[in-house]
Amino acid sequence: MDLADLQRTIAATYGAQDRARGVDGTFAWFVEEVGELSRAIRREGHDERVEEFSDVLAWLVTLADLTGVDLAEAAKRYEHGCPKCAASPCRCAHADPTRP
Amino acid sequence: MDLADLQRTIAATYGAQDRARGVDGTFAWFVEEVGELSRAIRREGHDERVEEFSDVLAWLVTLADLTGVDLAEAAKRYEHGCPKCAASPCRCAHADPTRP
Repeated sequence: MDLADLQRTIAATYGAQDRARGVDGTFAWFVEEVGELSRAIRREGHDERVEEFSDVLAWLVTLADLTGVDLAEAAKRYEHGCPKCAASPCRCAHADPTRP
Repeated sequence: MDLADLQRTIAATYGAQDRARGVDGTFAWFVEEVGELSRAIRREGHDERVEEFSDVLAWLVTLADLTGVDLAEAAKRYEHGCPKCAASPCRCAHADPTRP
């Protein structure tokens, strides 16, 4: 699944209604889906989790599109490992053992 | 940016510390990043938004990996448009005009 293709498809599918609803309303809906993901993880099964993960991703993609962010370009920060310590596995916890 | 590649890289980078922290702690950190994304959208500029979108995506991917979900597979629900009405552009609002 190519992330740029997904953003194009989601923009074509929801872009008009997202622009009509605006950024704040779209963010609110994204957060509603985050809540549904929490419930699926804590209390439901694999199929519900798959559905809620896909919904949260779709709302994140649509929110990126609405705010002028190319999510595939943004994701390149993580393409080679941790963007903070530049290592994979991440070594940030070695530098800061209080890191949760 | 291939989503399956991203999940593999993020699992290799953060998987060990995610498993040590557990699902609840990882979800809490994901939500912290959602809050930072909100601030970036409302009060900051393009570069901060790019960074926060990539962080939220990375935490979503790591949470999917930790709970046994293949996010690229999950994303296929949206591959051809809206999974509810099967149309692109989405026609759900025509079926339910009260949809926000």
